[in-house]
Amino acid sequence: MSFNTFGRVLRFTTWGESHGPALGAVVDGCPPQIALSEADIQPFLDARKPGTSRFTTQRREPDEVRILSGVFEGQTTGTPISLMIENTDQRSKDYSEVAKAYRPGHADYAYDAKYGLRDYRGGGRSSARETAARVAAGAVARKIIPGVQIRGWVSAIGGDTIDEAKFDAAQIGRNPFFCPDAAAAARWEALVDEARKAGSSLGAVVTCEATGVPAGWGAPLYAKLDADLAAGMMGINAVKGVEIGDGFAAAALRGEQNADPMTPGNDGPQFEANHAGGIAGGISTGQPVRVRVAFKPTSSILIPVPTVTRDGHASEIVTKGRHDPCVGIRGVPVVEAMMALVLADHFMLHRAQTGR
Amino acid sequence: MSFNTFGRVLRFTTWGESHGPALGAVVDGCPPQIALSEADIQPFLDARKPGTSRFTTQRREPDEVRILSGVFEGQTTGTPISLMIENTDQRSKDYSEVAKAYRPGHADYAYDAKYGLRDYRGGGRSSARETAARVAAGAVARKIIPGVQIRGWVSAIGGDTIDEAKFDAAQIGRNPFFCPDAAAAARWEALVDEARKAGSSLGAVVTCEATGVPAGWGAPLYAKLDADLAAGMMGINAVKGVEIGDGFAAAALRGEQNADPMTPGNDGPQFEANHAGGIAGGISTGQPVRVRVAFKPTSSILIPVPTVTRDGHASEIVTKGRHDPCVGIRGVPVVEAMMALVLADHFMLHRAQTGR
Amino acid sequence: MSFNTFGRVLRFTTWGESHGPALGAVVDGCPPQIALSEADIQPFLDARKPGTSRFTTQRREPDEVRILSGVFEGQTTGTPISLMIENTDQRSKDYSEVAKAYRPGHADYAYDAKYGLRDYRGGGRSSARETAARVAAGAVARKIIPGVQIRGWVSAIGGDTIDEAKFDAAQIGRNPFFCPDAAAAARWEALVDEARKAGSSLGAVVTCEATGVPAGWGAPLYAKLDADLAAGMMGINAVKGVEIGDGFAAAALRGEQNADPMTPGNDGPQFEANHAGGIAGGISTGQPVRVRVAFKPTSSILIPVPTVTRDGHASEIVTKGRHDPCVGIRGVPVVEAMMALVLADHFMLHRAQTGR
Amino acid sequence: MSFNTFGRVLRFTTWGESHGPALGAVVDGCPPQIALSEADIQPFLDARKPGTSRFTTQRREPDEVRILSGVFEGQTTGTPISLMIENTDQRSKDYSEVAKAYRPGHADYAYDAKYGLRDYRGGGRSSARETAARVAAGAVARKIIPGVQIRGWVSAIGGDTIDEAKFDAAQIGRNPFFCPDAAAAARWEALVDEARKAGSSLGAVVTCEATGVPAGWGAPLYAKLDADLAAGMMGINAVKGVEIGDGFAAAALRGEQNADPMTPGNDGPQFEANHAGGIAGGISTGQPVRVRVAFKPTSSILIPVPTVTRDGHASEIVTKGRHDPCVGIRGVPVVEAMMALVLADHFMLHRAQTGR
Repeated sequence: MSFNTFGRVLRFTTWGESHGPALGAVVDGCPPQIALSEADIQPFLDARKPGTSRFTTQRREPDEVRILSGVFEGQTTGTPISLMIENTDQRSKDYSEVAKAYRPGHADYAYDAKYGLRDYRGGGRSSARETAARVAAGAVARKIIPGVQIRGWVSAIGGDTIDEAKFDAAQIGRNPFFCPDAAAAARWEALVDEARKAGSSLGAVVTCEATGVPAGWGAPLYAKLDADLAAGMMGINAVKGVEIGDGFAAAALRGEQNADPMTPGNDGPQFEANHAGGIAGGISTGQPVRVRVAFKPTSSILIPVPTVTRDGHASEIVTKGRHDPCVGIRGVPVVEAMMALVLADHFMLHRAQTGR
Repeated sequence: MSFNTFGRVLRFTTWGESHGPALGAVVDGCPPQIALSEADIQPFLDARKPGTSRFTTQRREPDEVRILSGVFEGQTTGTPISLMIENTDQRSKDYSEVAKAYRPGHADYAYDAKYGLRDYRGGGRSSARETAARVAAGAVARKIIPGVQIRGWVSAIGGDTIDEAKFDAAQIGRNPFFCPDAAAAARWEALVDEARKAGSSLGAVVTCEATGVPAGWGAPLYAKLDADLAAGMMGINAVKGVEIGDGFAAAALRGEQNADPMTPGNDGPQFEANHAGGIAGGISTGQPVRVRVAFKPTSSILIPVPTVTRDGHASEIVTKGRHDPCVGIRGVPVVEAMMALVLADHFMLHRAQTGR
Repeated sequence: MSFNTFGRVLRFTTWGESHGPALGAVVDGCPPQIALSEADIQPFLDARKPGTSRFTTQRREPDEVRILSGVFEGQTTGTPISLMIENTDQRSKDYSEVAKAYRPGHADYAYDAKYGLRDYRGGGRSSARETAARVAAGAVARKIIPGVQIRGWVSAIGGDTIDEAKFDAAQIGRNPFFCPDAAAAARWEALVDEARKAGSSLGAVVTCEATGVPAGWGAPLYAKLDADLAAGMMGINAVKGVEIGDGFAAAALRGEQNADPMTPGNDGPQFEANHAGGIAGGISTGQPVRVRVAFKPTSSILIPVPTVTRDGHASEIVTKGRHDPCVGIRGVPVVEAMMALVLADHFMLHRAQTGR
Repeated sequence: MSFNTFGRVLRFTTWGESHGPALGAVVDGCPPQIALSEADIQPFLDARKPGTSRFTTQRREPDEVRILSGVFEGQTTGTPISLMIENTDQRSKDYSEVAKAYRPGHADYAYDAKYGLRDYRGGGRSSARETAARVAAGAVARKIIPGVQIRGWVSAIGGDTIDEAKFDAAQIGRNPFFCPDAAAAARWEALVDEARKAGSSLGAVVTCEATGVPAGWGAPLYAKLDADLAAGMMGINAVKGVEIGDGFAAAALRGEQNADPMTPGNDGPQFEANHAGGIAGGISTGQPVRVRVAFKPTSSILIPVPTVTRDGHASEIVTKGRHDPCVGIRGVPVVEAMMALVLADHFMLHRAQTGR
């Protein structure tokens, strides 16, 4: 109900700034007796970790997570799980100019307008470093719904879209772009390199799919599964759009094109298509839950942009420091984490109401 | 936190099914001493009302709202405002077939899978009639933020998009499509007529803009203004996608294209563009808040679709009854209502935290 | 999170004033496929109904409940259940004096200070009539936890306490005081009659016990079963104190006196005492859950009390109209309802987290 | 909505076990631009700190708080404030016996019944050490409402009550009992010493008063100021009862005795008494807000109590280790903290709704 907590029954609260001593998440409501250790969480943080290729920010953070509470003798106790990640590679000096003038596209001006002050070092609370806390929380959520497989990938960078016909899940881990289309990955290497060298940045689209979600999760009408996914994804830094299933493309279809015909199956109905993205009326249908998320190009660029200073004078700003040329790439583990958190929450909410 | 309530400080809860005796909303947290009567709410319900043209469902509901509590001597008292709308034109006989088989694209199967039963008459709780309750609640929200102007319109039907260069706000009320482009409205007349006669349906995109929103509303990170808008819009029946500002188009831009350059103004910074849709870091910037919402074509069509019956046999279904050939059209007042409700909530939340 | 909603997973929202057209509750999150009709709710409203003896207010309200949504063919659907009770016996003319001056002990001044206005007719929103909505909601909650038996009684009026040794549950329904001690009931008849004739009023203590609650409901630390019971009970009009188990008496005990010794039983541990009132660490122990609730004497009395008028002048006030000489008596069904609502919510919350 | 979070607009979430590496609180929603450093928080933790006299547990914890986020250049930023206190003096070996058998009166059995496992070291999550996190959060809350003075004291130990006529606020800090009556403090020294030496424990009553609360804070009906105070206090470890104002004593009064007569004052009405404890209809009246809280004697005693082992056999248990002979004494800073947190939350909630 406040500002930094997400979820209904399974809830997590994140805290921390880019350049403070640490950041973290408190995961509350986790079922007891689930095996959990740092080793279950670290791989997801490593996937999101900066500095692993020249296509992401050169900030080097080990992003080592510590579990401070809620686990006893290797098992969750049902009490809050406090996860902490220390910040180690902070260079506050990089941000002296940001203190004086607003970076267009960043939250600088909005924060000042709201709070009357802001922690300008690395974006403070609005830094994408916060997403490390979500990724850690998401790793806990995955353990709650072991039957669900969640897989995300980058489906477009700078308007260059993958060829769905060449989708190969095995490729996702083999290139620095989480790209399932080897040809697209090759093109993106040149594309992102060019933008990086030009001091520019690129937007991206991340697609995420969850399989193994049974029919029945979700709830009308303000706790729809898709409404919660939309809130979760839109709350990620730099996200400007969310689609479920065909999304905006569905708005261009006719009813008979958009229907997902059903046929009898061994275990409930089978669907001949999945325009709906696995959700109807806010409730899962048993099909894969599919979401697409639009990341804008990061506003931290070396190309000068007209702006105003805190004291109201015209200026230009270039954002030095270490930034992602395409923040959407590292968005993949974050989108996956939010998918896991929303699904685990709805699994528990469904169990509360129906006992199943 | 439960299922049918929306909002943080200003909260509303809706109830009611398509074919029950009534439906309604309880608006809680409204500031006191606001002049309010049924006459403030009814025009918005009338705008959403079915049966006003051949392009919407022929169900005829007066949709007359009654205020049952929370108003005394013409003013809000600060206590919950109960709004009720009676259902009058129900024809339960239309839905006998729906009881037996699942309509693909509808929530029929998902409800059965979740609850083990469903009110099949007119979609029950998943009926678009529920949106009448939101529209009524939204009218109350507008009174809380009188300085904000909210305007929605249909910007595409069936893939046919308006020409932004011909945008004329005065046109919106002059055609049955809430269309600001007279030429597009003329085209849509033929388009929707054709679909209606073919027993088909069309998707649509609704755009909504709020002006007069000061900088500073919103909150990091899970109560971002855009995250709450995304949840609110995605919770509307038939919605499959939400964009803030440029949305998915931003994912194809470079950083310098997507920046909204700032220049000094008389009353804070001026912006040279609004790619961000008036929100940065989850907080309003003072620019118009702009959202785009994708409505799928309604799944209630007269064209047969393969399906399964409740007892698992293959079948085909056509959905008779009175349906909207393009449910996105009547979505305009609903999108406006959700915009008003989210903004009023964040106005109050901002006031709670900052006193402004 | 707002102001007129209670509960975590099972939530209800009440609305309505004493002298408006109606009042009601929306119960959200109720499990599906529970048989429910008005006949399940009405007996509890009848138990609370005014005008049944000379010991309660002479206002005569049939308090007939209507289910407006959430039930289909006699079963709950899992969607919100809207319950409405129309007000019929309102006499607004009784309250003219109250409009001008504040009744000490009532919420009159506090409402004016908060909201700048108040519905002075019968106390408006602060009227005990609101408790009818809770009683209706509580009847729904009972159906969710059929294995739990909830029984409340008046254990003291005006400082005259029942003899626990003479506790006879069968007596509770046989006198107008919900009194389990026949001798005390006889004394109270004279006591309350005297107060009523003197234009005064009396406080009371209500005790409520729930049996059949399994060990394990509740949660640390801010959602403790006892913390939620305390909130629920203290939210009832005229309540000024809440105890779990021995309550304040426990504060006068030594550790060895207050311990509830355990011995092996056939179905988990047996307890040799129940000082704890069935709750340890915020979680049920399997013993009866026991709560005591202190009701102050109603402030509506015919004895003049010094006060001030709205415009700040000294005055005296006597509260004419029809009032309960001992509002705690009719508090019994209300306390039972809150017990049922808290327990049903925690049953569901426990199921969400543990699957049991 | 989940289990370890408290508050509506100002919310805090606590985490941590008695014998984990650390414990903490995340305070979310705090207004920006409030001067805050560890030095503002530490004195309150020191007041609660164990090991300061022979009348409290001999566990020695420095309880040094660190602010990990939400403060920049000495001022709150409006983003979540993460507070962490490391555990240093843990002796896990003390608790081997507790692992095998349930301590009557403790949460041991209830936790096992709920979660199927428990962290038995020092009570785990149900340890009174968690209250350190609340005290830290409460220190932040005090800074939000600088005009409110909050003062708590012990008003009874083991049934021996202070003489209200000898109340002297200056005494509270001069004895190890937070006792405002010097004569009572002298008696308690002998009383607590005797219990400690006997391996027993004593219950206590803590009274807390907040002055400077303006009329108008609070809300009907499920967010009443008194209901939230009741929830907050009852959620403290070992608390079994809560009273507002006269509490249970009011249940023995007549209406004319319980009324708080009003007279005109310079700044709104004056009250001639405060039976109501500063709250009417759930809303503050401008009088001191007064609450009484009953602490049971701690169940950790050296006197053997019959119990059962985890595997169901009869046993006896004595709780060795370092325990408070009267846990209510150190409850004073905790009760004050909860008072501050509830009041600050309602100050902000009131501001949200009314702008005042």
